[in-house]
Amino acid sequence: MKTFQPPRRLQGIQKSPIRQLHDRAKPGSINLGLGEPDLPTPDIVRQTAARIVTEEQNGYTTHAGLPKLREKVAGEYPQLNLMQDNIIITAGSQEALYLALMTLIDEGEEVLIPNPGFVAYPTIVRMAGGVPRVYKMPKEKGFGFDVEEFRASLTDKIKVVVCISPSNPTGRVLSREDMRAMADALKETGIYVVSDEIYRELYFTDERPPSISEYYPRTLVINGLSKSMSMTGWRLGWLAGDADVIKSALVLHGYVTTCASTVSQKSALSYWTDEAAQARASFRQTFKERRDYLLSLIENELKLKSVAPEGAFYTMVKFGYDSIKVAETMLEEKVITVPGVAFGDEAEGYLRVSFCANKETLEEGVSRMKLAIEKLRAVQICMYGRNS
Amino acid sequence: MKTFQPPRRLQGIQKSPIRQLHDRAKPGSINLGLGEPDLPTPDIVRQTAARIVTEEQNGYTTHAGLPKLREKVAGEYPQLNLMQDNIIITAGSQEALYLALMTLIDEGEEVLIPNPGFVAYPTIVRMAGGVPRVYKMPKEKGFGFDVEEFRASLTDKIKVVVCISPSNPTGRVLSREDMRAMADALKETGIYVVSDEIYRELYFTDERPPSISEYYPRTLVINGLSKSMSMTGWRLGWLAGDADVIKSALVLHGYVTTCASTVSQKSALSYWTDEAAQARASFRQTFKERRDYLLSLIENELKLKSVAPEGAFYTMVKFGYDSIKVAETMLEEKVITVPGVAFGDEAEGYLRVSFCANKETLEEGVSRMKLAIEKLRAVQICMYGRNS
Repeated sequence: MKTFQPPRRLQGIQKSPIRQLHDRAKPGSINLGLGEPDLPTPDIVRQTAARIVTEEQNGYTTHAGLPKLREKVAGEYPQLNLMQDNIIITAGSQEALYLALMTLIDEGEEVLIPNPGFVAYPTIVRMAGGVPRVYKMPKEKGFGFDVEEFRASLTDKIKVVVCISPSNPTGRVLSREDMRAMADALKETGIYVVSDEIYRELYFTDERPPSISEYYPRTLVINGLSKSMSMTGWRLGWLAGDADVIKSALVLHGYVTTCASTVSQKSALSYWTDEAAQARASFRQTFKERRDYLLSLIENELKLKSVAPEGAFYTMVKFGYDSIKVAETMLEEKVITVPGVAFGDEAEGYLRVSFCANKETLEEGVSRMKLAIEKLRAVQICMYGRNS
Repeated sequence: MKTFQPPRRLQGIQKSPIRQLHDRAKPGSINLGLGEPDLPTPDIVRQTAARIVTEEQNGYTTHAGLPKLREKVAGEYPQLNLMQDNIIITAGSQEALYLALMTLIDEGEEVLIPNPGFVAYPTIVRMAGGVPRVYKMPKEKGFGFDVEEFRASLTDKIKVVVCISPSNPTGRVLSREDMRAMADALKETGIYVVSDEIYRELYFTDERPPSISEYYPRTLVINGLSKSMSMTGWRLGWLAGDADVIKSALVLHGYVTTCASTVSQKSALSYWTDEAAQARASFRQTFKERRDYLLSLIENELKLKSVAPEGAFYTMVKFGYDSIKVAETMLEEKVITVPGVAFGDEAEGYLRVSFCANKETLEEGVSRMKLAIEKLRAVQICMYGRNS
């Protein structure tokens, strides 16, 4: 009997390195690796959901999702003049990303993704038969956007550009000036931008980060409630943009998941309440304090440099060498982090460290990192002598 | 600027004809078209869910789903000796079907599907780059399984066979004898069977319908709670079977949806309670009574022949001509049904009529069907004369 061979589209495609590392963690490990807010889902959502599951029957919605919810989502992007038909409610922003890339990319087409950037981008591009190309977010610029790098990577073959701000893994935000420059470079190319805005509500700047869709209308926006509302397990996301692309993505969506959870969709309407807005503001405040605390620990305890993120809940800590080796040594000391190289070679030499944990946990996590660093130094001294 | 062209995998792929028809229904229409139980989700699920959303934080589960839930699901298939690692919890059985076919089929490979059968099978096969072939469930045998037809369709090129029992659209069940014959035909071919068992808990026979996996171990089972627990909007399904296939499907699942809704996963554990078992028994009783009622109405009021289903909640009503024309005339009279041809040419001349409605609604639906039939007869007489 033949053994199973996966089809070409899945060959060489692995579970995300973040999950792989996580799976190998020892019991009692501190998790500064996964991107999941630890703050409780706001009460307004819980109360709404409890009422919905008790009082209402929760059958299929239309494939695209509840009209009322799509209307609310459309209203989030006045610059794009969207209607209900421009929105698909998805099983988390992950499904929105999958749909967008599977709908936009045909066999052999090229997609420009940020380096470093979220691990799912090159993988889904490959599943779609596409070819991932990268634009560097240079480490010398603290992983900020560099329009020269972007322009240099923008060949005639590029069909789609992926953009993420605030960034996973770096927490860096594209400024209005960056976005203007990106839009300018893309003008009249016909390229579609897929804008991953899942961290857009988690910012530490005065202004909420802009969306590239304010500068470049040929944009498909991806967002959801996982990060902004601490609702990762509710699987509620959306894809918003050009009606023709959405129409095609909607057909795919129907065959992939039928519709997003109706319980989650109805509960999601709580997003547009004052209580939820207050909860989001409070989340931002908490993450800002944690960020400042973690950055000071890294500087003072570890004596290492790190990126000051403007959003999301990650920082990139600079080690300057083999990030897998460093992350593995961290694992031995029971602290989970993610090697920068998982996000692209530009982030080699860095670790992504998240601050989805309270100060006490961050402190304990950093003290374990310190032990790991001492261990790494001892090995280096052993191998190369004290002055290496 | 170029207009959007979908990639090859999505070209010619349409929204399901069931949904298309549904979208065109007039307000006030009676829906005997969609496959969604109208009975309320059992109280035990509602109470569990209300507690979970109120008291617990619902973050990501592992991609494959809650270990406890996977253990319960594995226990449903003692004949396959499954463990946790043989199970993926999915966003409804639709995602399980998508994952199974996208994981098993490579470009150009052939898949044998039942004719008639659920509309998603040929569509997803095409999205995977595969070629759908059919085995006839002959109308002359009331759409029952015919091993000669099956053997005649089983060429060397077939990589995967899809099997559904109880069937959508016909409600027919494969007997143990049918399954033994199918397994015998497949012996030593190395073919994978994808067994869609979403209607397996809705049966009107003395014995619960068997699973092909009891006779043929190289089977991937698809199931979920949508139909058996009236939980269509909760999007909770599973894929169970061979560890190597599951391992590959799990990687895809991670990039498609990350994990199924945690609220739905935790609530799904209620399935394995006495209360839920009682609810399922009561659902079966209700659907059996409705089936009998609908069949008698069709016979006595419409004077038409129909299939006596052994499971699911559909019957096939014989008209003998253009099923799209018939379904459209029904739509004009405000009753939604599905043309048989949507499920394959073997069902041309039939309508799928579901009994997901109470007796009063069924009665009103049938009286509207009667009006439509009179209209159709008038047109026929007009076109072909009284004796045509």
